[in-house]
Amino acid sequence: MLNKMMNETKVIRDNVHGNIIIKYQIIWDLINTDVFQRLRRVHQLGGTFMVFSSAEHSRFTHSLGVYSIVDRIINEVMTDNLNEYDGIVGLCAGLLHDIGHGPYSHAFEDVFKTDHEEMTRRIILEDTSVNQVLRSYDENLPLAIAQVINKEYHNKLLVQLISSQVDADRMDYLLRDATNAGVSYGLFDLERLLRSMVVVDNRIAFKESGVHVLEDYIFARYHMYWQVYLHQTTRSYEIILHKLLSRVKVLFAASYQFKDDIRFLKPFLNKTTLAIKDYLNLDESILFYYFRCFMDEEDPILKELARCFINRVLFKQIDLDNIQQGLKIMNYIEDNFEKRANYFDISQVKSSLYNYYGEINSQSIIILTKNKELKELYNVSNLVNAIVKSAEEKQEVKLYFHQRYQSLINEGS
Amino acid sequence: MLNKMMNETKVIRDNVHGNIIIKYQIIWDLINTDVFQRLRRVHQLGGTFMVFSSAEHSRFTHSLGVYSIVDRIINEVMTDNLNEYDGIVGLCAGLLHDIGHGPYSHAFEDVFKTDHEEMTRRIILEDTSVNQVLRSYDENLPLAIAQVINKEYHNKLLVQLISSQVDADRMDYLLRDATNAGVSYGLFDLERLLRSMVVVDNRIAFKESGVHVLEDYIFARYHMYWQVYLHQTTRSYEIILHKLLSRVKVLFAASYQFKDDIRFLKPFLNKTTLAIKDYLNLDESILFYYFRCFMDEEDPILKELARCFINRVLFKQIDLDNIQQGLKIMNYIEDNFEKRANYFDISQVKSSLYNYYGEINSQSIIILTKNKELKELYNVSNLVNAIVKSAEEKQEVKLYFHQRYQSLINEGS
Amino acid sequence: MLNKMMNETKVIRDNVHGNIIIKYQIIWDLINTDVFQRLRRVHQLGGTFMVFSSAEHSRFTHSLGVYSIVDRIINEVMTDNLNEYDGIVGLCAGLLHDIGHGPYSHAFEDVFKTDHEEMTRRIILEDTSVNQVLRSYDENLPLAIAQVINKEYHNKLLVQLISSQVDADRMDYLLRDATNAGVSYGLFDLERLLRSMVVVDNRIAFKESGVHVLEDYIFARYHMYWQVYLHQTTRSYEIILHKLLSRVKVLFAASYQFKDDIRFLKPFLNKTTLAIKDYLNLDESILFYYFRCFMDEEDPILKELARCFINRVLFKQIDLDNIQQGLKIMNYIEDNFEKRANYFDISQVKSSLYNYYGEINSQSIIILTKNKELKELYNVSNLVNAIVKSAEEKQEVKLYFHQRYQSLINEGS
Amino acid sequence: MLNKMMNETKVIRDNVHGNIIIKYQIIWDLINTDVFQRLRRVHQLGGTFMVFSSAEHSRFTHSLGVYSIVDRIINEVMTDNLNEYDGIVGLCAGLLHDIGHGPYSHAFEDVFKTDHEEMTRRIILEDTSVNQVLRSYDENLPLAIAQVINKEYHNKLLVQLISSQVDADRMDYLLRDATNAGVSYGLFDLERLLRSMVVVDNRIAFKESGVHVLEDYIFARYHMYWQVYLHQTTRSYEIILHKLLSRVKVLFAASYQFKDDIRFLKPFLNKTTLAIKDYLNLDESILFYYFRCFMDEEDPILKELARCFINRVLFKQIDLDNIQQGLKIMNYIEDNFEKRANYFDISQVKSSLYNYYGEINSQSIIILTKNKELKELYNVSNLVNAIVKSAEEKQEVKLYFHQRYQSLINEGS
Repeated sequence: MLNKMMNETKVIRDNVHGNIIIKYQIIWDLINTDVFQRLRRVHQLGGTFMVFSSAEHSRFTHSLGVYSIVDRIINEVMTDNLNEYDGIVGLCAGLLHDIGHGPYSHAFEDVFKTDHEEMTRRIILEDTSVNQVLRSYDENLPLAIAQVINKEYHNKLLVQLISSQVDADRMDYLLRDATNAGVSYGLFDLERLLRSMVVVDNRIAFKESGVHVLEDYIFARYHMYWQVYLHQTTRSYEIILHKLLSRVKVLFAASYQFKDDIRFLKPFLNKTTLAIKDYLNLDESILFYYFRCFMDEEDPILKELARCFINRVLFKQIDLDNIQQGLKIMNYIEDNFEKRANYFDISQVKSSLYNYYGEINSQSIIILTKNKELKELYNVSNLVNAIVKSAEEKQEVKLYFHQRYQSLINEGS
Repeated sequence: MLNKMMNETKVIRDNVHGNIIIKYQIIWDLINTDVFQRLRRVHQLGGTFMVFSSAEHSRFTHSLGVYSIVDRIINEVMTDNLNEYDGIVGLCAGLLHDIGHGPYSHAFEDVFKTDHEEMTRRIILEDTSVNQVLRSYDENLPLAIAQVINKEYHNKLLVQLISSQVDADRMDYLLRDATNAGVSYGLFDLERLLRSMVVVDNRIAFKESGVHVLEDYIFARYHMYWQVYLHQTTRSYEIILHKLLSRVKVLFAASYQFKDDIRFLKPFLNKTTLAIKDYLNLDESILFYYFRCFMDEEDPILKELARCFINRVLFKQIDLDNIQQGLKIMNYIEDNFEKRANYFDISQVKSSLYNYYGEINSQSIIILTKNKELKELYNVSNLVNAIVKSAEEKQEVKLYFHQRYQSLINEGS
Repeated sequence: MLNKMMNETKVIRDNVHGNIIIKYQIIWDLINTDVFQRLRRVHQLGGTFMVFSSAEHSRFTHSLGVYSIVDRIINEVMTDNLNEYDGIVGLCAGLLHDIGHGPYSHAFEDVFKTDHEEMTRRIILEDTSVNQVLRSYDENLPLAIAQVINKEYHNKLLVQLISSQVDADRMDYLLRDATNAGVSYGLFDLERLLRSMVVVDNRIAFKESGVHVLEDYIFARYHMYWQVYLHQTTRSYEIILHKLLSRVKVLFAASYQFKDDIRFLKPFLNKTTLAIKDYLNLDESILFYYFRCFMDEEDPILKELARCFINRVLFKQIDLDNIQQGLKIMNYIEDNFEKRANYFDISQVKSSLYNYYGEINSQSIIILTKNKELKELYNVSNLVNAIVKSAEEKQEVKLYFHQRYQSLINEGS
Repeated sequence: MLNKMMNETKVIRDNVHGNIIIKYQIIWDLINTDVFQRLRRVHQLGGTFMVFSSAEHSRFTHSLGVYSIVDRIINEVMTDNLNEYDGIVGLCAGLLHDIGHGPYSHAFEDVFKTDHEEMTRRIILEDTSVNQVLRSYDENLPLAIAQVINKEYHNKLLVQLISSQVDADRMDYLLRDATNAGVSYGLFDLERLLRSMVVVDNRIAFKESGVHVLEDYIFARYHMYWQVYLHQTTRSYEIILHKLLSRVKVLFAASYQFKDDIRFLKPFLNKTTLAIKDYLNLDESILFYYFRCFMDEEDPILKELARCFINRVLFKQIDLDNIQQGLKIMNYIEDNFEKRANYFDISQVKSSLYNYYGEINSQSIIILTKNKELKELYNVSNLVNAIVKSAEEKQEVKLYFHQRYQSLINEGS
């Protein structure tokens, strides 16, 4: 029953993959849950569309895209390696791997101590519409899918398919983010990558003839990180959001009386354990509504930060020599101008943020050489080796500050 | 001063045009107003992304795109035909032509009797951040721009550039909607279309050698209408929205006590004249917030319609023979089952909806023939003639209904 | 043995289809025959690259492309409708359907009375390397393939796959010619077309939901014909070629002594039956060599026509009212200025050349409607109906002439 | 008069650049010379289309493409840096930079000791149709253009435009070769590269914000070299050609009587100085004709090598440890089996072949940093630094041999 086919195959048009094909009823049922539909209201790249205007795509389309790539790999590469049950587990895991993401995950989680990975598991395992759909097909399905996403499933091939250096998730987001942002440097040859993928000893490997496609893929990731994901203006937007959410938290803790009822936000402010249904109420629309309300608040800091966020009054930035210099500045501001500290922040971007390449060592992309040996890509490709080393040396430290302190900064420098 | 250049040219990446270039300071200032930024929170195609998932783009990117095409036409086609003042007026008009759009304009305006064209004029002419920017450069600028958009400007070339059968607006939205939806049939050769454009007697015309590109453009529009814009499932989503907004209006008129304070929606429900600042408060996020709140309301109809809208529980549909049949059904339901009428609606799509081609006669696309004569495209191209006639005959009438009445419909048929 | 797989699947990169996959040994063997390799030396579009410079592709890549589309249709659409034998017959037929084409078929065949369709059959059935490969797998294979190409095979599904209104041949050449020429109007959505294709009663049909893709395909063909295939300058080039080949024939018949030994051309000039090996010796390189030699000939007409052809000294043209007018002019020239007739010609392009749409009636593209009825596209799509009627009315008659007679023409008009 | 405009601007469609615009009469006149038209009969990538089938494009379309990029750079980047005279010199130089290329330059020049760069100069400076066109506009034009191509022109900006690490030539061929071969890894963002290009101190430099585009460009070149230009099968084809041409030379020196008159090849075989008109007679068609004739020759080696070349009977290859090993093998074969040596060859590909990156040091790509300093790309980009070092270490040595010696090789290894 798990493999129940739809009466009529569904085809969803997609600006990245062309056609996304839905054959199994369970996939269609999952897509139609309120929990999955909620992903339409969460931007895939948070505030990046403030810089790359056309990168307005959601986690919804990305999730469909991951499903679609998993579907292709299962049918084109792993036909002899996966049974139908595991195949469907893989499709569901691909579709649901980001189901726990909330609005602007990065800043939000940092302030409210939520964790989208934990939420993904809870959504799959606790009482939600997603869980109901899964159990209606097979009682053990939620656990299996959660294990795949959690990298604990007994069939490691499925785990790699969803979470590894070259997994369906990364493949889709690179292509999707680059396509929507309108930047060609993030594109790579998906067709060729899939054609060079093989299964050896129940592991994903790549034929040596495909090494140049992997090099191109690594290169695309390198550029997407430094040009798009870590773009200085995106970070400015996220810093404002962080400051804004922090201010809400501080005020709430101080029993500040908000003019509007912020009822969907309160569960995150209270110390009690968060119910999954409360978590699922939140999306970017809800959050945005409250930010709009904050523009009418009494507290001048909350009011100003909300204005900056909504009307794109971005913080400015200057380069710093190192993180120590940054911390010294922040300490000075916090010690001497407590309120001003709401308008300053330090952002450090370095290889640690960029540990994707570091992972090559620990997790390894495997090459099946012409002589049928297995080697790490790192040891086969001088180029990848070079890119990784080059990436490790790169870092950036910046001080961000509200525009009103521009003259202050000019004096200080 | 109107032509003040930016210190550094700004380049915005775009998934349709590649690079959008901002040279004038006034354009950058307009983009950075809260009023223009608000367009980021209004989908270009309303609820179409419920069917074409990846069509998630906003009126913000479309407005930039129109600006960009106007910029190209001014520099590549009209160099000798426009002075710098009119050129900048044209750029501003292109950028601002949709500034009055609110969330889900179609259904919203029908229920609340607002008009985005009127709002566009008011935003430009009344006291808003957009108006302030314009006046800071030139006191007469707001009026000039409003006149262009309103088709009353003395220089008709500018009017045609923004509003005609083959204007910058349509060029951008066809390309943008097709690109984002992932459907190739909406694409046409923009480069070639611009190359064939000429100015004759202060009118836009097209060289005869470009007729095939115009045919392709007309064909693209034909397909986008029937495949995307009028897609039966998009209409389902809009009907639910229409029913939902109507229910809010009915309840408010009946002094229903809403649990949540719907303060940004009230100005639209009160009979008084709408202030422009109240209009600008509304966007899809705000509207969505209230819909989410309605899911917790007492009124079962409001509650259910909100649920349908948010969780994509779409109305089903069947074909009807003609509009009379539809009206008879609706009358019957309204007479006998007052409440059920909230869950039924008729949708007629015919050539009148599709009056773009009708306009060819009245407004005319002009061809400059090899012999230097001016003729209507309609009279030059048998193909366009044929497409237009074919389009006029096409129509569709459908009855939409809540899924719970499926069996009722089955019986009835 | 017919289905012998290759040790390692071959992948040929292609600028139209991305990857062309070769799995069967027989296909690889056929590609590697001298007869098939010869297609690399025959341009797909004859002299069209004299106008659309980048349309330099050969019949070799087109043939691979047809094979590739046949492969996809067999695997994606006809899995349950073809047995493996017929599948391989189809692949071979797709690959070999143009194997009999010679250099500049149109003009060449008209002058030398050869027929590429007959040659295709002979190459497959007589003693050639292609025939040897086929027989080495199965004695009956040559006949089966020849029958498919000749529309006589017992399994009509295969026949339709290779030769019908919407066959693999047309699909590839439209996409390939448009891609290489750099004209977007010839493109259509191949993915969607294949997805809407079904087999009903052992016939190819298309789902009603795919009608708009077929409309787009018909539209693409319409434009490719009038903009590319029948381009006035391409016709000029072909007319020169026709005049040149005719002159060779006249001189040879008159026992003219050619300075160079034209040994590979002689079999075509002699009255005896053409041996298949003599036919296969000819390609564009060989022909071109002789044309170059003719530039050094005594006969001034031969010399001049060769110069025009090689150095692209194209004939000019003027529009005529109708074919009668053209014939009158030609008769006058032939009667009064015998030699000048070598530098004049009439070209008529009308619906009869454009009988592809006429074929819709006789051969019919079939639509499987939502109600599971079978109807002709012509009767389902108003648009196709309109395009076909529009096409039937269109015609062009032109007089082509050597540039040296420009002033004569000017006087005459 | 040099800047005489055409009556009507010509637009040539192109599968890489879309539209190529011809405004000056002199450019159109040059394109229409027999000398320039001859480039249609020389493949841009020699025998690469034997591996990448769809890479069938000619030096003709590449030359138009270079012209087109030069045109854009002059108009978009160098408006204030070049006067009209130098602008037109640059356009002509871009168009003519490859005019001296003959068929399969690499192997041909090695055997016959011709040099396409010298031929380019001679074609421009000696009595040819190209020279006539140039002189008809300006007596000094041929010398100016030859100097630009020869890197001796007084205005070094023009020299860089045509010949430098990031010149119009390389930009076009990377894009064109990748597009036609159907490999995405050779593509880079031309728009962005041109936008980041500036002129500083009469030198081409690139803004620091464009460094990532340059990285992508270098990366594309790296991949095109190793995947396409140096592809092992392409080299096999070129080795056969080299052997074949060498055999012709040996036989001619030994007064061998060729059955066919190889009149257009003789000037290359005779010891006398080559006349430019004899050089221009040769193209791939002519050469191919003689190769076809050689298939009917008595000499078994000539006959066999011609067959291998024409029917794509490629030499096989095995990897060697180093060049010394290869030379030892070749010496052994030459000493012991003189005739067999015609069927064996060594191919070494290393960083020296790949000296483009080495040039970075000597010729330098210059970055204009945010602080308005000029630095070498090599010192700004860790990534480029890493790629170059990685490239330097890479090399390949292979032994190629006729298939008939496969068993011999198997024994030997």
